[in-house]
Amino acid sequence: MIKASIIGATGYAGLELTRILSLHPEVKIVGAVSRMAAGKHLSEVYPSFKGKDLVLLSELNDSDDSDVVFTALPHGVSMNIVPSLIAKGKKVIDLSADFRYDDADTYKKWYLEHKCKDLLEDAVYGLCEINKDKIRTAKLIGNPGCYTTCSILPLYPLLKEGLISTDNIIIDAKSGTSGAGRKESLGFSFCEVNENFKAYSVAVHRHTSEIEEKLSWAANKNIALSFTPHLLPVKRGILATIYANIENISRKDVLDAYKMYSSEPFINVYENGLPELKHVNGSNNVNIGFVIDERLNRLVIVSCIDNLIKGAAGQAVQNMNLMYGLDETTGLSPVAWYL
Amino acid sequence: MIKASIIGATGYAGLELTRILSLHPEVKIVGAVSRMAAGKHLSEVYPSFKGKDLVLLSELNDSDDSDVVFTALPHGVSMNIVPSLIAKGKKVIDLSADFRYDDADTYKKWYLEHKCKDLLEDAVYGLCEINKDKIRTAKLIGNPGCYTTCSILPLYPLLKEGLISTDNIIIDAKSGTSGAGRKESLGFSFCEVNENFKAYSVAVHRHTSEIEEKLSWAANKNIALSFTPHLLPVKRGILATIYANIENISRKDVLDAYKMYSSEPFINVYENGLPELKHVNGSNNVNIGFVIDERLNRLVIVSCIDNLIKGAAGQAVQNMNLMYGLDETTGLSPVAWYL
Amino acid sequence: MIKASIIGATGYAGLELTRILSLHPEVKIVGAVSRMAAGKHLSEVYPSFKGKDLVLLSELNDSDDSDVVFTALPHGVSMNIVPSLIAKGKKVIDLSADFRYDDADTYKKWYLEHKCKDLLEDAVYGLCEINKDKIRTAKLIGNPGCYTTCSILPLYPLLKEGLISTDNIIIDAKSGTSGAGRKESLGFSFCEVNENFKAYSVAVHRHTSEIEEKLSWAANKNIALSFTPHLLPVKRGILATIYANIENISRKDVLDAYKMYSSEPFINVYENGLPELKHVNGSNNVNIGFVIDERLNRLVIVSCIDNLIKGAAGQAVQNMNLMYGLDETTGLSPVAWYL
Amino acid sequence: MIKASIIGATGYAGLELTRILSLHPEVKIVGAVSRMAAGKHLSEVYPSFKGKDLVLLSELNDSDDSDVVFTALPHGVSMNIVPSLIAKGKKVIDLSADFRYDDADTYKKWYLEHKCKDLLEDAVYGLCEINKDKIRTAKLIGNPGCYTTCSILPLYPLLKEGLISTDNIIIDAKSGTSGAGRKESLGFSFCEVNENFKAYSVAVHRHTSEIEEKLSWAANKNIALSFTPHLLPVKRGILATIYANIENISRKDVLDAYKMYSSEPFINVYENGLPELKHVNGSNNVNIGFVIDERLNRLVIVSCIDNLIKGAAGQAVQNMNLMYGLDETTGLSPVAWYL
Repeated sequence: MIKASIIGATGYAGLELTRILSLHPEVKIVGAVSRMAAGKHLSEVYPSFKGKDLVLLSELNDSDDSDVVFTALPHGVSMNIVPSLIAKGKKVIDLSADFRYDDADTYKKWYLEHKCKDLLEDAVYGLCEINKDKIRTAKLIGNPGCYTTCSILPLYPLLKEGLISTDNIIIDAKSGTSGAGRKESLGFSFCEVNENFKAYSVAVHRHTSEIEEKLSWAANKNIALSFTPHLLPVKRGILATIYANIENISRKDVLDAYKMYSSEPFINVYENGLPELKHVNGSNNVNIGFVIDERLNRLVIVSCIDNLIKGAAGQAVQNMNLMYGLDETTGLSPVAWYL
Repeated sequence: MIKASIIGATGYAGLELTRILSLHPEVKIVGAVSRMAAGKHLSEVYPSFKGKDLVLLSELNDSDDSDVVFTALPHGVSMNIVPSLIAKGKKVIDLSADFRYDDADTYKKWYLEHKCKDLLEDAVYGLCEINKDKIRTAKLIGNPGCYTTCSILPLYPLLKEGLISTDNIIIDAKSGTSGAGRKESLGFSFCEVNENFKAYSVAVHRHTSEIEEKLSWAANKNIALSFTPHLLPVKRGILATIYANIENISRKDVLDAYKMYSSEPFINVYENGLPELKHVNGSNNVNIGFVIDERLNRLVIVSCIDNLIKGAAGQAVQNMNLMYGLDETTGLSPVAWYL
Repeated sequence: MIKASIIGATGYAGLELTRILSLHPEVKIVGAVSRMAAGKHLSEVYPSFKGKDLVLLSELNDSDDSDVVFTALPHGVSMNIVPSLIAKGKKVIDLSADFRYDDADTYKKWYLEHKCKDLLEDAVYGLCEINKDKIRTAKLIGNPGCYTTCSILPLYPLLKEGLISTDNIIIDAKSGTSGAGRKESLGFSFCEVNENFKAYSVAVHRHTSEIEEKLSWAANKNIALSFTPHLLPVKRGILATIYANIENISRKDVLDAYKMYSSEPFINVYENGLPELKHVNGSNNVNIGFVIDERLNRLVIVSCIDNLIKGAAGQAVQNMNLMYGLDETTGLSPVAWYL
Repeated sequence: MIKASIIGATGYAGLELTRILSLHPEVKIVGAVSRMAAGKHLSEVYPSFKGKDLVLLSELNDSDDSDVVFTALPHGVSMNIVPSLIAKGKKVIDLSADFRYDDADTYKKWYLEHKCKDLLEDAVYGLCEINKDKIRTAKLIGNPGCYTTCSILPLYPLLKEGLISTDNIIIDAKSGTSGAGRKESLGFSFCEVNENFKAYSVAVHRHTSEIEEKLSWAANKNIALSFTPHLLPVKRGILATIYANIENISRKDVLDAYKMYSSEPFINVYENGLPELKHVNGSNNVNIGFVIDERLNRLVIVSCIDNLIKGAAGQAVQNMNLMYGLDETTGLSPVAWYL
């Protein structure tokens, strides 16, 4: 059994992580930290755990013997805590943005000055389908963002194969409100969100930089693209509608590029039809479909993930599975809830 | 034109009041007060007013010339402000609980010590269909609560006519989340409310006392009943399912009792079928249907209102219409939105 | 491995059953029947199965070697199909109403004339926490209804212990729309249901008779009660608010009665607080809380289940686990989704 | 008073039209036709009309004396009915696609062969803010589509002024489900739509051709663009996110172009911030905001309408107001519901 701890167990990503790990057949949770609810039972915060409870800690004990620590903390906070965990020999899977970037300058530009650039260099970007070999031997994982997972995976093979123009890539993304985390905020209250829909952070959302850095790997050139997030009146799920200009490529060409994913257990490429949120919510899947608009020489891709699973907690567990030599799918559902 | 001011224009009841009054053909809004947004345009808080804007004040000017002031403030706050308005000769329609009770002791028991009991005595309970004559000449209206409006109106005629047992009356009520007002609260966030449903304040909700006091008028004896509120994942609307024991009464007997409302423009009694939220939301209507369960000698009533309109702002405007001798329906829709 | 088949795999209960069984560690699905989608892949109907697909059959093959067959069919249809399955030596878990009743006359009165009364006599009512021993050796299970599971379990111990009056029991129940099944119906369209709420089948819902028959077992006398279902604008979950008159009983008395469930893995009795849909949805749990209203000598109980899991597919799998000597919880989550 | 009739009063556009007209101070509804509900009261179909009812007809009487007839029928059906109404001297406002196109060949290509091309030539495209003078004297109005209204109005001034590139225009639009009309369809059931989101008709939606034809007027050249509709889990409202390439234009340039709308009562251009559905739903407004992404030389526009009001019934009434010389805003709200 892998002994795992979670720091930040009562945020929404932490909640989902705790749920998945508590049902994972190869994991024993040895510590669950929540500063705001230390000393309480988890079921006092989330009564959904009445059937399988644990006590929340204010911090990991000195005697903590976890093999792996999941840090589900705000960016800027993780980088204060992760170094000491690494120093104690723990493997760390960090769900914040703090260890996702190759380039500390990019991190600084979109977030803030990085405080442990050496660790940043050692960290492995935990996008499992792109970086699998490095993940297996990693000590520190920068677990990808939700929007970025949903955006990078469908574009990566096409840019690698040079099938689409690198100009005029537009990602119009729509996310459920759990992506904003658990917070007291008027803007996320039911009365404000239900029967509403809005765009936000247009042209300035931080995930833009993460998407661009990783897609630049694939294209072997600098990519700059439009990324527009929207807030859906749903709890879970991200759907990205992606536009790219093409010339003389066929449906088969695109499907061939996606063969890169043919042995990936969590990626479903649609022969026809397009994915919807309910095709993925509750699972760790990334579903991808597309339409070639011959009239306009444009490719329209639709990709979907569950933002809390493949976009956060599920991918973190997938990373752990890889790091410990388990079947990648252990404890993660390939079947979505649908309802 | 009636010159009207609103104190508390940016809460949800205040929003709805401002929307209705800004479209009312006989009203000119001369002051809209919001301490939290003073100096801003209303459209900065609610962009729904982009097409018909006004500037928010920190308090009513000394030169304020309003005829009537609507106070949409928390209970306990209104009673600090209303006396000076009355002293200036304004008519006041108060949407809080502060001027709803006959009995200051009941108010104290369920809320707090009352600070102006003499005004409380002069205040008229603004349940239009029950208290119409007193309202016409009132200077201070205690506008009824939302749950109470939806509960009292269907029961009043039956208790008055002695058609139901006064024991074992149970009101199982379900409200949209706007009833909780506009606030930063985790418990009312979209992720917590959507796809959820819960009971709250079971056996201790304050509206119980308001319902009991007014129904005791009708029954001419003290009424004590169960009132259980629930939180619906909808924005607007209250539906109350009401149970009362009966003996040997017919459908016709109940319909006859409801003839008391036959000339009321906003009460729709169903000959058959039962009301639903979408039959009333957006209107000032109270819709009432019922089933006689002969197997159990029990009457089951279903009543619905829009909590922000008939349960707050609409009823306040109906009171104003009565106080100024206008057609009661002026500026208030008898047709619901349905969608 | 248990070889299991599902007849009616593409209704909503069938969908949930197929999802649970496809992830169950001790089950191999050997047949999934859907007349309306025979020959298709399940993922063509529900793309949520893209990651774990199967082909739908028009009927079970002659060579079918399943040990247990789940029939998820409309009432009246099951009783035409189950006899031949039993004759072939299959164990059968039927999710319709056809094999739930002790009394064929009650079934006739609320549904229709029963066609195989002898099988009805042999069938075991599959409410696991009440009927566990009989279930272990049963060949044919009548899997309980959703409303009934949520209503019977909280009341059973109280009636057995004589803690509540058998008069004036009122069950005010609210269900998500998946309870109505998968159908093309204007009344269940999004535009009609969202931001709406309604009561239906007041005083005449069929589940009333199932609740009454089983609670009469507990009380050892005939029980007649009010049961009012309502349609919530949510996909999943049932919450029942239950009212019963009491005399001089304490909170401890009620908790003592519920000790009957203390070793039940799926029943959570709340020491304080009340359950909500999100405390149970996604799990097989039944959560029960209550308030004693001393002012009125009335007990108010709130109980919640996921209608598709404990109310249908999960309980069916729990029954299968019991029939095959597995740990009752195998393949069933004790942790709810919360989000 | 204008005597108005509605053919197709019980579809969702018809419902909204009937609601608006029944409250319009200058209109008397003299006929409401619904083949499916002829003879019934409107309140039997939509109990939201309990407070202001009318009887539905199977067709307009021979003695029908309406001045104007609104036809809210499926495309292909309207063109069978409108000619006889015109022949009788009625003014007609048709809400289908049948009279929207300049070019019968375009109509044929995206819909079907047109049956009355001469009337098509006389028909005026009822996009009020673009075509106001022609509308005033029109006898037959082709009322614009919902997606098209939301797409054309923000782009028209920019194309007219040559501020954006005509290549690479992408309209990513999201609509509430009422846009699909009132129908029994599994795909629009609550369980399928809630907590879901999907794209549909990618690259082939018919409204593409209507948008392109009208924007070609503005640009004075043929426009071809990407239009992608999505289905939101909301009842009402359309939000379009529009991308266009630019070169060296400023925020002021865009605002200057929008001055074309400065006297339009229903168009709100945002100085800053972006519109959301709840800024427009319930009103006849078109709200437009934008961001200039200087990093990419791209303009991102967000526009919103209520699909049933400005996208259908409200615009139809606005057209009527213009045709009868009324203030354009009569009976139409410039204030949205917000909640």
